[in-house]
Parts: sequence; C-alpha cells; structure tokens
Amino acid sequence: MKTIIGVMGGSEADPRTLDAAEKLGSLIAREGWVLLSGGRASGIMEASARGAKAAGGLTLGILPDTDTQGASGHIDIPVLTGMGDARNAINALTGHVMVVLRGSVGTISEVALALSAERPVIMLDFSLRSTFPDHYARGLIRDVATPEEAIEQTRTVLT
Amino acid sequence: MKTIIGVMGGSEADPRTLDAAEKLGSLIAREGWVLLSGGRASGIMEASARGAKAAGGLTLGILPDTDTQGASGHIDIPVLTGMGDARNAINALTGHVMVVLRGSVGTISEVALALSAERPVIMLDFSLRSTFPDHYARGLIRDVATPEEAIEQTRTVLT
Amino acid sequence: MKTIIGVMGGSEADPRTLDAAEKLGSLIAREGWVLLSGGRASGIMEASARGAKAAGGLTLGILPDTDTQGASGHIDIPVLTGMGDARNAINALTGHVMVVLRGSVGTISEVALALSAERPVIMLDFSLRSTFPDHYARGLIRDVATPEEAIEQTRTVLT
Amino acid sequence: MKTIIGVMGGSEADPRTLDAAEKLGSLIAREGWVLLSGGRASGIMEASARGAKAAGGLTLGILPDTDTQGASGHIDIPVLTGMGDARNAINALTGHVMVVLRGSVGTISEVALALSAERPVIMLDFSLRSTFPDHYARGLIRDVATPEEAIEQTRTVLT
Repeated sequence: MKTIIGVMGGSEADPRTLDAAEKLGSLIAREGWVLLSGGRASGIMEASARGAKAAGGLTLGILPDTDTQGASGHIDIPVLTGMGDARNAINALTGHVMVVLRGSVGTISEVALALSAERPVIMLDFSLRSTFPDHYARGLIRDVATPEEAIEQTRTVLT
Repeated sequence: MKTIIGVMGGSEADPRTLDAAEKLGSLIAREGWVLLSGGRASGIMEASARGAKAAGGLTLGILPDTDTQGASGHIDIPVLTGMGDARNAINALTGHVMVVLRGSVGTISEVALALSAERPVIMLDFSLRSTFPDHYARGLIRDVATPEEAIEQTRTVLT
Repeated sequence: MKTIIGVMGGSEADPRTLDAAEKLGSLIAREGWVLLSGGRASGIMEASARGAKAAGGLTLGILPDTDTQGASGHIDIPVLTGMGDARNAINALTGHVMVVLRGSVGTISEVALALSAERPVIMLDFSLRSTFPDHYARGLIRDVATPEEAIEQTRTVLT
Repeated sequence: MKTIIGVMGGSEADPRTLDAAEKLGSLIAREGWVLLSGGRASGIMEASARGAKAAGGLTLGILPDTDTQGASGHIDIPVLTGMGDARNAINALTGHVMVVLRGSVGTISEVALALSAERPVIMLDFSLRSTFPDHYARGLIRDVATPEEAIEQTRTVLT
C-alpha cells in the first residue's frame, strides 16, 4: 500500500499560505507519497495538488460532489462521494498523517475528526493549541512553521 | 414540521455538566421541541435525553452504529447510520439550533460542521471563541452560562 | 424505543400504488408505529406520510438534502443527511421492518441494503423474487398483496 | 484525470467467477485504467485487485472500515470511509463505468445505485435484466459473457 498524506486547509487562502501549500504538495510528491485532499479547484486543495503534479506525484481527491465539475484539474483520482461535508470524516480516516494549513470551519472539522480517529495531525503555521490542548499534550497534534518541517515531522510520525 | 434542537457534548462529562445537560433536556421538552443528540448511552447524550423524557418530550438519536445496543434507553427514535463519526455531519444539519456543552474532538467537529452549514450554535459554559472568532463576530455562534439562557437564546434564534 | 417501520417505493407512482401507500401509512399510524421514509414531497414518500398524518401518526423522513425545501409537508421529523443516495443505507438500517411498494433503482437499492443488513422486508404488490431468490427462501423477504396483509406480516415479524 | 473502472461482485465467489475477475483486473490494468473496488481481502475484490497488480496497474479500494486490517494486500490506495454499506454509493458514483460479476445483495445495491446515478453498468456473466428492464432498454446496463467483451464494451461506453 502507498503512503497517503492528507493536506487540508481553506478553500480561500492568502498568497503566502497558497505558496506553502504548493511547496508542501511538491515535497510530498518527492517523498513518493500520495497527496490526499478535498479535491476541489480552489484554495489549499488546488495549490497542493498543483505542487504535487508539478513534481510528478499522484493526487487523490475526496470530493463532496456527485460529479467532477468542481474538481481540480490536478487531481488524478477523484473519489465522488456526493456526501457534502460528511466526506470530511473520510478525509480524516484515509490519510496516514494530516498536514493542515490555515483554514476555517471545514478545515477545523477535519482536524477534530482526524484526532477523534487517532490520526496524527501536523499544523503548518496555523496552531489550534488552545482548541485541542489535551491532544497537543499527547503529541498527536503538533505545530510546525515550514513545509520542510512538516515533511520532517511526517517522516518521524510514519516511522 | 417539529422544531428540532440538537444537544451536543462529551461522551464523558463532569457531574456539573451532566446536570446542566439534564436540565437543558427537560427545558427543551417543555418548549415542545424535539431533542436531537448522538443517541448513545453516555455523557451528555444520555443526560440530555433523560431530562427530556422525564419532562415528557420526544427524543431523536442519530447513532454512529448499525444497531441499538449502545443507544440510550431514553431515545424514542434511534436513527441507525452505521457511519461512525461521518454521522456528525447529519447532527449538524438536522438541528434547527445546536446547543453545545463541554466536549472533546467529536463535539468540536459537530460545532465546526454546524457552522459550515450555517446553523446557529449556542455554547453552554464552553466557549470556543478563540477557535471560531469570525463566526462569533457574525453572531452565528454565541456563549451562554445556564440552560435557561440557552433556551432563551434558542427562542431568539428561532424567531 | 418506538417501533419504526420503513415505507419505500418510487418517487413516481401510478394512482393505485399511491392509494396503497396512503392506506399503508394510515394503518402504520394506527398501530402506533413511527413511519420512516425518504421524506420527500413526491410519490410513495408523500402518499405514505399523508396517510400516516391523517391517522394521527408520527412521521420520520431521512432526506438526501441539506435543507427541507424538497421535504413533504407531512413529515414531522426531517433528518437532513446531505448525502444523496448514500442515505439509502440509513433508511435500510433504521426501520425495524421495511415495507416496499413499486419503485425503480433507488427503491431496489434500499431493498438490497436492508437485506444486506439482515432487516426483514415485505414487498407489497411488487415482487423481487427473481432478484433475491436466496433471501426469499430464507424468509427474510416476502410478498404480500394488500396494505392490510403488509401490516399483518409486519406484526408477525416484530414478535 | 485517470479513467476509473469499478469492478463489483460477491465477497464469496466460485472459482470460475474468481478467474474472470482476475482476468478482468489484468485487462483493466493493461488499458491504463485505475481499478476501483470495495477493497477487501475476499472474493471479487481480492481477485480483481490481484489481477490488476500482476499486470502493473493501479488499484483503488473504497473500504467500509475505519482501518486497513480487512483490506486486500493488492490495493494501492485504500480509502477508509468507516461507513459500512453506505460506501456502496461512493463506489457507484466514482467509477466511470462499473463492471459487475456475480454477487449478492451488496453487489445488487451497487448496480442499483450506479443506475440511479446514471453511471453505465456492464454485467459479466450475471444478468439482472428482469430486475432493471427499463435501464436495459435504455442501454445504460448491458450483458456480456467474457472479460474481453467487458473491456470492449467499456471502451465503447467511454468514447
């Protein structure tokens, strides 16, 4: 089985966060990992998938929709759930590790669901330490500052 | 259609929070509203359903399970989803208002999903103001201190 | 807990089948059972809910939608899944017994999912004997000709 | 985006059907298509994935489970839904075409859900003509006798 790394974050994002998402996507691809995201053509989903494809990676998108109209063109494998936000639980379960960039309620639901499923979460320049203090204390969720550091922490968690 | 009020919170809880959940359940029943919860026989789910039944109310449980073995005996209508945490999105969509007591990752995922679906959320002695500052600013989520105040705010939101 | 009886069938139906659905809904209500359906304002869902409400019953609708715009006005408790056809699996799990009138692919998926979950199925003037021969042989699914006979068989299965 | 072909069928199967599934998996791989299945280590899911991997293909499994314990070792990308049979709707939506070998209630639910989503279905040595006569008449579902013929029909449907 391949190693699958989720990248979550807002469907809208500032340029700096989008740059980090694209860089993260390319680094994930270079590790030989599959990039998992929500699969849509916006924000962190689009930027991370673009980065992964530019580096020759494989991209998996778990879409809320029943068709691929809203899907990013950088997604190789669109999984159509037709389930709306209920698909966030699938994102949470499917990644071996979830790396999270700045986002809003959808992103935070995915972090909460990943922690509920005991999946390790790495927060990239977007701390939720005050929201999940117990899980930070246990080390299941941790903060990093750069895409490179996110990859390093992912490697640590995977071994 | 009946008015459906979700009550969310931890599957484990301290006595004071359990008392508040039971009180809240009974007040919801007295308003003639249907109590919606995760339906299991523990924590806030059990306490709020017990309160609602003692006051003659109707209780709806959206269970993660494929059978009723783990369901609270105070649930009138157990909806069996067999979907695990993915059912949290159904809890978020189905309540006209969600009242939230102290909880952990599952509860926080339900708050995030409710806000994502633009459903009003009332936090009872459990503020998430630092997690969702923009939605607090918009008034979609607000803090209250007592079950009575939660009912009052719910009435305001419903009208 | 209340006894919940699912009524499934086409979102389009001929007058005779609609009459049977309405009659069935009223008989379910008279037994004191909760009527479960897909909850929308069309076909068997609408007719069975109308029958149940006219007889003073309680109606539960598991909707594919994120809002109640398409819901039947005869549904007391609309559960909003936002999951499209994936909600058919919830319909299949939640009814203690499923009674099925003439329908198409959606209805047949619900029968198959109910049998997969080992839920008893009663086919009202709509046999699927050639589709599910083994389950007919086991008695998990059976054919009846009238709403009255469906109620009689449901009573037998429940005891 | 890659072309994704679903292969559905029983979790138990006779040797001849398993051989056909393995052959079909290998032919799908040779076309450069991604093989989609329910992903578990049994029956048609296991045989088709083994065939696809032996021919150098890529395999995607949409699992009902929250972990990979029951997954086939021939699945490259296990999507963990934790949703039980509700995931059948995702299988139905995600494949561009669904090829179906002999199966029971789970398989029939997937055929019904695929037709409901207007996805083309090819039945390999397992006709459901008496169950879905209208959809056969429309050509959305058709019968074939061999894996080679299934591939030929899939090609026709895709163009």
